[in-house]
Amino acid sequence: MKTKDILQKYKEGEIDLSEALSMLPKSGIEELGFATIDTDRQRRTGLPEVIYATGKTVEQVRQIALRMHQKGIDILATRATHEMYTAIKNDIPQAEFNELAGCISYRKSKEYTDKGYIGIIAAGTSDMPVAEEAAVTAEFLGNRVEKVYDVGVAGIHRLFNKLDLIRSARVLIVVAGMEGALASVVGGLVHIPVIGVPTSIGYGANFQGLSALLSMLNSCASGVSVVNIDNGFGAACQASLINKL
Amino acid sequence: MKTKDILQKYKEGEIDLSEALSMLPKSGIEELGFATIDTDRQRRTGLPEVIYATGKTVEQVRQIALRMHQKGIDILATRATHEMYTAIKNDIPQAEFNELAGCISYRKSKEYTDKGYIGIIAAGTSDMPVAEEAAVTAEFLGNRVEKVYDVGVAGIHRLFNKLDLIRSARVLIVVAGMEGALASVVGGLVHIPVIGVPTSIGYGANFQGLSALLSMLNSCASGVSVVNIDNGFGAACQASLINKL
Amino acid sequence: MKTKDILQKYKEGEIDLSEALSMLPKSGIEELGFATIDTDRQRRTGLPEVIYATGKTVEQVRQIALRMHQKGIDILATRATHEMYTAIKNDIPQAEFNELAGCISYRKSKEYTDKGYIGIIAAGTSDMPVAEEAAVTAEFLGNRVEKVYDVGVAGIHRLFNKLDLIRSARVLIVVAGMEGALASVVGGLVHIPVIGVPTSIGYGANFQGLSALLSMLNSCASGVSVVNIDNGFGAACQASLINKL
Amino acid sequence: MKTKDILQKYKEGEIDLSEALSMLPKSGIEELGFATIDTDRQRRTGLPEVIYATGKTVEQVRQIALRMHQKGIDILATRATHEMYTAIKNDIPQAEFNELAGCISYRKSKEYTDKGYIGIIAAGTSDMPVAEEAAVTAEFLGNRVEKVYDVGVAGIHRLFNKLDLIRSARVLIVVAGMEGALASVVGGLVHIPVIGVPTSIGYGANFQGLSALLSMLNSCASGVSVVNIDNGFGAACQASLINKL
Amino acid sequence: MKTKDILQKYKEGEIDLSEALSMLPKSGIEELGFATIDTDRQRRTGLPEVIYATGKTVEQVRQIALRMHQKGIDILATRATHEMYTAIKNDIPQAEFNELAGCISYRKSKEYTDKGYIGIIAAGTSDMPVAEEAAVTAEFLGNRVEKVYDVGVAGIHRLFNKLDLIRSARVLIVVAGMEGALASVVGGLVHIPVIGVPTSIGYGANFQGLSALLSMLNSCASGVSVVNIDNGFGAACQASLINKL
Amino acid sequence: MKTKDILQKYKEGEIDLSEALSMLPKSGIEELGFATIDTDRQRRTGLPEVIYATGKTVEQVRQIALRMHQKGIDILATRATHEMYTAIKNDIPQAEFNELAGCISYRKSKEYTDKGYIGIIAAGTSDMPVAEEAAVTAEFLGNRVEKVYDVGVAGIHRLFNKLDLIRSARVLIVVAGMEGALASVVGGLVHIPVIGVPTSIGYGANFQGLSALLSMLNSCASGVSVVNIDNGFGAACQASLINKL
Amino acid sequence: MKTKDILQKYKEGEIDLSEALSMLPKSGIEELGFATIDTDRQRRTGLPEVIYATGKTVEQVRQIALRMHQKGIDILATRATHEMYTAIKNDIPQAEFNELAGCISYRKSKEYTDKGYIGIIAAGTSDMPVAEEAAVTAEFLGNRVEKVYDVGVAGIHRLFNKLDLIRSARVLIVVAGMEGALASVVGGLVHIPVIGVPTSIGYGANFQGLSALLSMLNSCASGVSVVNIDNGFGAACQASLINKL
Amino acid sequence: MKTKDILQKYKEGEIDLSEALSMLPKSGIEELGFATIDTDRQRRTGLPEVIYATGKTVEQVRQIALRMHQKGIDILATRATHEMYTAIKNDIPQAEFNELAGCISYRKSKEYTDKGYIGIIAAGTSDMPVAEEAAVTAEFLGNRVEKVYDVGVAGIHRLFNKLDLIRSARVLIVVAGMEGALASVVGGLVHIPVIGVPTSIGYGANFQGLSALLSMLNSCASGVSVVNIDNGFGAACQASLINKL
Repeated sequence: MKTKDILQKYKEGEIDLSEALSMLPKSGIEELGFATIDTDRQRRTGLPEVIYATGKTVEQVRQIALRMHQKGIDILATRATHEMYTAIKNDIPQAEFNELAGCISYRKSKEYTDKGYIGIIAAGTSDMPVAEEAAVTAEFLGNRVEKVYDVGVAGIHRLFNKLDLIRSARVLIVVAGMEGALASVVGGLVHIPVIGVPTSIGYGANFQGLSALLSMLNSCASGVSVVNIDNGFGAACQASLINKL
Repeated sequence: MKTKDILQKYKEGEIDLSEALSMLPKSGIEELGFATIDTDRQRRTGLPEVIYATGKTVEQVRQIALRMHQKGIDILATRATHEMYTAIKNDIPQAEFNELAGCISYRKSKEYTDKGYIGIIAAGTSDMPVAEEAAVTAEFLGNRVEKVYDVGVAGIHRLFNKLDLIRSARVLIVVAGMEGALASVVGGLVHIPVIGVPTSIGYGANFQGLSALLSMLNSCASGVSVVNIDNGFGAACQASLINKL
Repeated sequence: MKTKDILQKYKEGEIDLSEALSMLPKSGIEELGFATIDTDRQRRTGLPEVIYATGKTVEQVRQIALRMHQKGIDILATRATHEMYTAIKNDIPQAEFNELAGCISYRKSKEYTDKGYIGIIAAGTSDMPVAEEAAVTAEFLGNRVEKVYDVGVAGIHRLFNKLDLIRSARVLIVVAGMEGALASVVGGLVHIPVIGVPTSIGYGANFQGLSALLSMLNSCASGVSVVNIDNGFGAACQASLINKL
Repeated sequence: MKTKDILQKYKEGEIDLSEALSMLPKSGIEELGFATIDTDRQRRTGLPEVIYATGKTVEQVRQIALRMHQKGIDILATRATHEMYTAIKNDIPQAEFNELAGCISYRKSKEYTDKGYIGIIAAGTSDMPVAEEAAVTAEFLGNRVEKVYDVGVAGIHRLFNKLDLIRSARVLIVVAGMEGALASVVGGLVHIPVIGVPTSIGYGANFQGLSALLSMLNSCASGVSVVNIDNGFGAACQASLINKL
Repeated sequence: MKTKDILQKYKEGEIDLSEALSMLPKSGIEELGFATIDTDRQRRTGLPEVIYATGKTVEQVRQIALRMHQKGIDILATRATHEMYTAIKNDIPQAEFNELAGCISYRKSKEYTDKGYIGIIAAGTSDMPVAEEAAVTAEFLGNRVEKVYDVGVAGIHRLFNKLDLIRSARVLIVVAGMEGALASVVGGLVHIPVIGVPTSIGYGANFQGLSALLSMLNSCASGVSVVNIDNGFGAACQASLINKL
Repeated sequence: MKTKDILQKYKEGEIDLSEALSMLPKSGIEELGFATIDTDRQRRTGLPEVIYATGKTVEQVRQIALRMHQKGIDILATRATHEMYTAIKNDIPQAEFNELAGCISYRKSKEYTDKGYIGIIAAGTSDMPVAEEAAVTAEFLGNRVEKVYDVGVAGIHRLFNKLDLIRSARVLIVVAGMEGALASVVGGLVHIPVIGVPTSIGYGANFQGLSALLSMLNSCASGVSVVNIDNGFGAACQASLINKL
Repeated sequence: MKTKDILQKYKEGEIDLSEALSMLPKSGIEELGFATIDTDRQRRTGLPEVIYATGKTVEQVRQIALRMHQKGIDILATRATHEMYTAIKNDIPQAEFNELAGCISYRKSKEYTDKGYIGIIAAGTSDMPVAEEAAVTAEFLGNRVEKVYDVGVAGIHRLFNKLDLIRSARVLIVVAGMEGALASVVGGLVHIPVIGVPTSIGYGANFQGLSALLSMLNSCASGVSVVNIDNGFGAACQASLINKL
Repeated sequence: MKTKDILQKYKEGEIDLSEALSMLPKSGIEELGFATIDTDRQRRTGLPEVIYATGKTVEQVRQIALRMHQKGIDILATRATHEMYTAIKNDIPQAEFNELAGCISYRKSKEYTDKGYIGIIAAGTSDMPVAEEAAVTAEFLGNRVEKVYDVGVAGIHRLFNKLDLIRSARVLIVVAGMEGALASVVGGLVHIPVIGVPTSIGYGANFQGLSALLSMLNSCASGVSVVNIDNGFGAACQASLINKL
């Protein structure tokens, strides 16, 4: 059926909206059999398709990366292993690997938005892998980043010493495990949006990050929102959307 | 005591129903010492006895499979390892192994019901092992299957592109991890039964599939029911019963 | 913009699928300000729009019911109170109220599908409100219903006495609180689909129905799927879709 | 001790930072005995002090409101009752009450930022109180608001019909209970930040909003962050900070 | 079909066991429409049918009690209200009501087993309703009872003072809320079976009895088993079965 | 048996330790039938017997109070109602009632230990009932108290303004709901023991205080221990033991 | 101080009960530095000291076993490894190892109580390790055991076929994972005590045995009590105490 | 800007407190890039900076230790491995390793406070690693320690035998897994502060220490507070602060 006819039928109520949709010619999709790459996502959501490597084989990650590369799409693979990086580097030698963050990335452009920078604050040394995942992602999405690490609330003067840098950001990502109090304290000191990332750092009644997650969700500071435990990537995505407003 | 006498006593109220039952001659059971095969299950429930391999040794799985094979029962072993497959193949060379699904199967007949097909929809590449377990099981039970993979709600147009195929099934299995929203979205677009299979794919506040499970149980689409996390097998069993109505 | 132009733009890739959609003329929606009635749902999903009364005021329920009535749509309001019924009856005198189920219903046609009947099994007297919600809904959707109540597993012979009636259904809804074992036991005795409805009946470690919910999700009988705690309505929706296949 | 001397001691390391702080003259605080009003919060965080009425007596709410009013601070009381409103109206006749939202508000200026508007999307009629709390708060903070209500994923075409309005916002608040899938679906269709507000609407395995909360935290759409269950206020605070960037 | 023919068919494998069962004449059941009284339970399980009043109307409780009374069955209704008692007393004037326990009971025989007594130990005054439910039930089932109340572990010498009485029982029921430690301490001092009843007494991290439940399940004393939170009735049932061995 | 003989038997191993104990003459116990008052507790644990009123009737509370009064024991009843206070005041006119704290108290001596004072810090106005329960208890136990209320971390300068008073205490009780971050922040600023009291203040993912509880248990400040949610009484008991060292 | 003097002081109230106790000569304890063997436990509780091997080193297990052996105490080590068995066998060659159960045992006497036998019923093959732990323990404690394995409720006729054997036991242990329904079904068919042992067998919403645990705690059959997940040992301890009554 | 000017501006209200703070000269901080050592913590909180080794690499731990050593700060690393110890010993040969506790420590002074000792009580052999972590920490902080191990409540006379030693401490740490009852029992026998440390020892419904944690939080003994599961370190920190009062 021709596009015109589909539309006509829809207009006359013979078919409904989703039937019309399913009849229209496809675009923005790249089929791999085991994966359907959403090549149109960047244009639609402002965020490109990204490879979440957990639960995928080395070979699957390699193939998706390669196909994206051939289509001219920038590559970011999170939760990736060194073995995956080695497999990809053969085909895409410029790809980089941040071991601490577990991120493989390749970005053609080296330019960053001049809107301002994203501040990434981490409570402890153990929270660094998540903070680095956020940093790699934010830079991949074209943002400049300033990092303020190991400034947990047990020694709150460490935080105050960096307050200038923190307050000059356009948006903040606060990464903290254990009791996650840092998000509330920072939220009470600034007037920019704060995105909390609870981490699974801790033990016992931490329950793999539940403690910090609940803490941040119940923050008494009003401008704080939260992403999933250990989700540095997601925090950076939202921070990038905000920074580019 | 003779069957007639047992019945007489029951009729007169001397013994109760379950006592009568326990005295009657046995059938439909095959004793292995460590296992009691329910050879009558197919006739009673429409679903044959199946081997759930987790927590069983390779040798136990091999013996149950062999005994079933000798009794002329088709074989399906789920959550099986390659090692188990190798052990079984010696005795039953026609047995097949789907590595991704972790399923060993052997079915004498190659025929399928002509009632229609079961549609299996998976949200992401990482959900494929569970979707494949459902597919292997559905085919083992004599159903044709159509697969629609990697159509999660973050790029909902991928789903619309397959809407024809989806709507033409007699029953749908929707496999999704993370937030499990796909079951609700599909349920709102079709008028056939939808069985949701939450998967343990995700991390952090996913809590090993709890997130997708709760999401599907609370679906705002009314025709959706749910099976256990990662239970592709169970979903296929119910889908088969429905498809054969 | 004209429909033709929208289509043209979509075809040439200037706008994407969802943009095209949002520009097309609307249908199948009835705006009430505080509610957007989905008048097209029956045709799209095989299940009509239904009023879930919890959290709505008496006046809101009345207005939605009235507007649906004016549009010629059959009315079912679940979790409704007697006060809501009184308010609706003024405008729609034929509306009926099942007090135990908490359901207001009005259905023009009095016909039922001749495909077969839906069997509704309830473990205890206290589970009856949920079972009745399922029964009212199933009949509202045009199905005949057979009820088997108070046959919990603590006296399993009560169940066996009704086995004929149970086995002759096309699909079963099993409603049980406490340990919810009835769904597994029934699932092991029949070869038709079983939909389990855990109820919140019980106390202590029942945790408002969690016990029965987990029990049914982990059923060792393979043909059992589950809906939300106390969700007799949802079970009946799926059962109706199955019964009409 | 004089300010100069305090500083001198701090510089020489005799006292530490927090000792110095505690000796310095106070400002930005208004003591009520039972409450310490943070009169400086607006300047420091971009968000004024707000009265969270739960757990406070009518009299306490009245006194705090009055004192703030006397200091020239705008007033917003959330989770407030009609009784509290009556008590406040005596002293501040211009105060307004949004019954559905449970919010008392009084704002001197009637101007709004011309940066753009905040879109507030609610899945169902029952989610409206939370959505309205967000709307009242956003407007109180000087933002224009566009509302899109009752567009849950079970009838996804209702959402597409409003896509223009949704995509033209600078930031979105998505309010949804039950399975909370709406946040993911919206997040996959726009390229602006999305703040999810899970609501406690639902029953059974909803567990007072846990279902929607986990769903949104595990969203497969990358630009989504989340606030506490039913926290329309907090979502609006962050949205306002974003909108004013 | 005649009983003989049913049996014949079963023997020849034409029908299976459960089909045979469902065809046999019924007994031991009393139908009330909304309830199916298991009149045979006493003979089958050693415990008579008992009325669990929660979720039943006053009228339902009255009718079941009356029917049981007419059949000559002793009556015990747990979780009953004073209103239910008043309704029953009209028809069965000898019925008694233990207000603290919430139990209505009527037992023809006044005899008790001479095997020994059941000891019921309660940690605090607030645990008494549950302990009394156990006591009423145990006596209803024909056991003598000795009570030792308010001997929680915070003053452990109170327990030692009653050690003779405790050690002379044949089986013990230990009722405790809060941290439920009493079950472990008692279990370490006696060589008779101990049945723990966690109660919902406490607040905060007690989580309605979860604390005491987990505590008792993890008891370091080996001879302790546990029943549901606040389930004095169930504990007494098992204790009675043990006492009568 | 005489005390000498009991001892002799124990020495010779004929009876064990607990048997010996149970035979020895009793003391330090006052029997009320429904309660066993531990009159010796003060001497044994440094803390007197206290009445926890929840789950007790007005009459039970009155009788226990009276008996304690007759024995010359000071009286503290927590979680008490105004009705209980009225009942007690008849017999003990000097008894006082702190309505906010829900505490009835009567203490003969008006003296306080001169060791130092207990600091009680509360995050918000809504946390005051718990903080007051701690204050009443601490004073009842003979300690002086200094209160610092409404100094939550969203406006952390309010806390710094009271740092002198806080640092001069011998032990601190920190009462906070929502995310409970205050305990960590205070713990990082002082070198005295900090006892955290999470409160149930908050909503949604607060889960009745779970959020603050987990937060405090996972505090990154090392000198912090925690008591049950809303347990101001318990915190004051431990603080008193510490203050009197 | 002499025993006589201790007693005198206690009698005169100079020292309290527990002080007296702590001054009396010790017995029934064997110190190993890292462990304090309770050599008196058998006499006091009817159950001997048993080695729970988890979290102990091979060397610690060996030393405790050896010391017990030297004292003439029978040996049972649960959750033991083959390595531990090898280490013990050197010193105690008659020790036996049940690999499936993970139990090392050595018992001098070969006699069993003639009171009757303990029935151990297991739902599935995968539940056998826990059932065997119960069996080894029960025999170690001097009880005869009858085993009925692989009779889960999905094929309930398998259970009926063994009803004679089951009903002739003096006490039953029912071991079941997944939905744990077997305990309720068995409890409804017998009039002897039933001890349920939930196992961690299953996956997904089984939550490591939580499903079966809650199921058994909420059993609608009244004579069922429960022990910890996978605690075959504890079930056998209580069953032994009951069997020997 | 000069310190004087900063102060002036603050005084005049041009800048707020935290801005002033962030402008003042820094001290008490040692930057390592991946870590910010809080060299001032000892003076500020009475507890020195300590290395929590989990989630840190061997090299990171070595570098932090070395830098602290160079600054003259005593070293304690908890949750450390033997590999870390080997790496540190090269640079700091006097460092010691407690394998059971997983603690590396080096302390210049060998003196202990003469205030009294900290008693550390452990319920079972398996709880010893946590108890030892507490012991190493307490001694590192300059306290003498007395240990009472393997005195769980299942054999309560073992505890009574050590009552003198227990009662003579100035503060007690009670370490217990499983049901954690020991904390309550001890709390009821002494009049000094008790700090409970729940451990993750146990299985099944222990849920990795949740059982003991809830048990201790709900202790019916009033002078008990609690730290995180397995947190021997934190308990010792608070005990040290108390012991030095």
